[in-house]
Amino acid sequence: MRHRFFSALMDDFSIDAVLITGRTNVRYFTGFTGSNAQAVAFRDERWFLTDSRYKTQARDEVRGYRIKIYKNGLPETSALIKKRKVKRLGIEGRAIDYSTYLKLKKLLPGTRFIDAEEGIAKKRAIKDSSEIEAIKKAVSFADAGFRVIETKPVIGRTEKELALDIEREVKKRGADGLSFDIIVASGKRSALPHGAPSDKRIRAGEFLTIDMGASFKGYKSDETRTYVIGRPTRRQKEIYGIVKAAHDSAMEAVRDGVSAKDIDRAARDVIKKAGYGKYFGHGTGHGVGMDVHEAPGISGLSKDVLASGMVITIEPGIYIPEFGGVRIESMVLVKKNGCEVLTNDKKELRVL
Amino acid sequence: MRHRFFSALMDDFSIDAVLITGRTNVRYFTGFTGSNAQAVAFRDERWFLTDSRYKTQARDEVRGYRIKIYKNGLPETSALIKKRKVKRLGIEGRAIDYSTYLKLKKLLPGTRFIDAEEGIAKKRAIKDSSEIEAIKKAVSFADAGFRVIETKPVIGRTEKELALDIEREVKKRGADGLSFDIIVASGKRSALPHGAPSDKRIRAGEFLTIDMGASFKGYKSDETRTYVIGRPTRRQKEIYGIVKAAHDSAMEAVRDGVSAKDIDRAARDVIKKAGYGKYFGHGTGHGVGMDVHEAPGISGLSKDVLASGMVITIEPGIYIPEFGGVRIESMVLVKKNGCEVLTNDKKELRVL
Repeated sequence: MRHRFFSALMDDFSIDAVLITGRTNVRYFTGFTGSNAQAVAFRDERWFLTDSRYKTQARDEVRGYRIKIYKNGLPETSALIKKRKVKRLGIEGRAIDYSTYLKLKKLLPGTRFIDAEEGIAKKRAIKDSSEIEAIKKAVSFADAGFRVIETKPVIGRTEKELALDIEREVKKRGADGLSFDIIVASGKRSALPHGAPSDKRIRAGEFLTIDMGASFKGYKSDETRTYVIGRPTRRQKEIYGIVKAAHDSAMEAVRDGVSAKDIDRAARDVIKKAGYGKYFGHGTGHGVGMDVHEAPGISGLSKDVLASGMVITIEPGIYIPEFGGVRIESMVLVKKNGCEVLTNDKKELRVL
Repeated sequence: MRHRFFSALMDDFSIDAVLITGRTNVRYFTGFTGSNAQAVAFRDERWFLTDSRYKTQARDEVRGYRIKIYKNGLPETSALIKKRKVKRLGIEGRAIDYSTYLKLKKLLPGTRFIDAEEGIAKKRAIKDSSEIEAIKKAVSFADAGFRVIETKPVIGRTEKELALDIEREVKKRGADGLSFDIIVASGKRSALPHGAPSDKRIRAGEFLTIDMGASFKGYKSDETRTYVIGRPTRRQKEIYGIVKAAHDSAMEAVRDGVSAKDIDRAARDVIKKAGYGKYFGHGTGHGVGMDVHEAPGISGLSKDVLASGMVITIEPGIYIPEFGGVRIESMVLVKKNGCEVLTNDKKELRVL
């Protein structure tokens, strides 16, 4: 049960209660899938609060919480906290915005606010078996989406058309939706690491980068494949080869206990040595779960350490303005002595 | 030019500079459509900061700002602010989260943070002609999506299937995407005001509520239509008629200078008088622009006053658990002596 986590969090942060307001955190801890709810965990009981639109849904979805319907939200939730004379309240630093914090401060004058974000993020970073199952399912839906592109001619079609075909397939398979707005970038546009699909048509000789994921039961997948349309040139092969080597080098380094920044270095060193260091501007990866981007961060600045049960991406890239770019992204589950690759593990250069 | 707005904001809030970090605000003020950027406006110049992935895109999209590529984000943006010895910095209270605020406080020890959210929201609430044009376009894409459902048999199809058909049509027409996850709720499920499409099949005799919108150039639409499948019963007609009367009553009250809470009352009184007050739990509407929900709020608690150029929804509803529900939602542009209805204005009960 995730309820037990709250006691551990209260110990770690010396707090008397935890306020949960972020939509994803609310879903993670309470199971509620609606858009407006808050939860408060005290030592001895937990409250779930939502508005009248969600009365029926809350009763169906939420277990282990006393349920209360509110009109205004924060004032009613704060009243519960005030009644308990909470001295130190744990809040989610990334879900509570500054305006809300100012309101809370007014509503709870005797309470100190402690940013417990890190503790929550750490908990969410380690996936249990049912979470891993949901992620694998999300991955399989996305895989079906990629296959739609890989099995039909693409030359002459627009990036937007490809994106629509993929999205339809992913949803038809049973996904809740996409993890994020799909990225389809071809030709010179593939030098934009986050190019939104445009009306540009796919032409022979181009790179085609597709970065997308599916969502299932709230869990996300995230994968990038780069293709060459028609016969690859020597330069295209060279660049793809370097990114692939960087990707594999990082993946080989993954195991319980390794620093995230060492994973980043494993990929970055390969690209640097090949002389393309300045064309790899982003981090090597990130955790994935109910959020597409969550802990741990896999970059040179990260202080995170990998642990068994984390699900992360490995996604080095090289982006050359006015030429094009390559990114190869896989999702892996961190294990004691290595990792399990969750996405399709054939990351050789594919020609469409 | 929106740049001039910053001077007005600095005057109104007695601040020396404004920090913009929210993705939608960044797009609104700078034109940048990427996912990671910040902007700072001083009295005499404006800076735009983003990471290396967006170098090319920033040059293409951003005008009137000095452009800087950062590695870490906040530390580099803060350095610019620190160099100018900013005493009072305006921040977006709803876009800056508590963790980020704590970081900022550390990075800028001599600076006071002023929540300028309200000033920004007020500016964004009043739409200029190009914004209204984009919203109208978004509305037309959504309209095409509704028509897909209205022109084909629906009995026996699942809510998810209808949702997919609508989404495909909306995107095929040229929308950037949907404004939000589409709501399709039939039969008893229509009593859930925010029911996500399920595998439930549509049956004769049911209510079918569809709430959705399209996005175009960053601007959103938002509209709800409730249908009856087959011959409506007397009770269905009665409930629909009450919601329609509430919707029309609110719409007739809309004009420049009216309090938002009076618009809410115009709708709510009709439903209350008919004896269904307790089945209308949400507010009557909200502003729509680059965010689906933005200022002004149209509820009994709102302190906002309508002004020409605002675009708002009118969306009363009645939701009866275990029976079903009706919501009718239109988007209107506030004018001096009334309003212009932007969505389809035929809101009579439609039988499918």
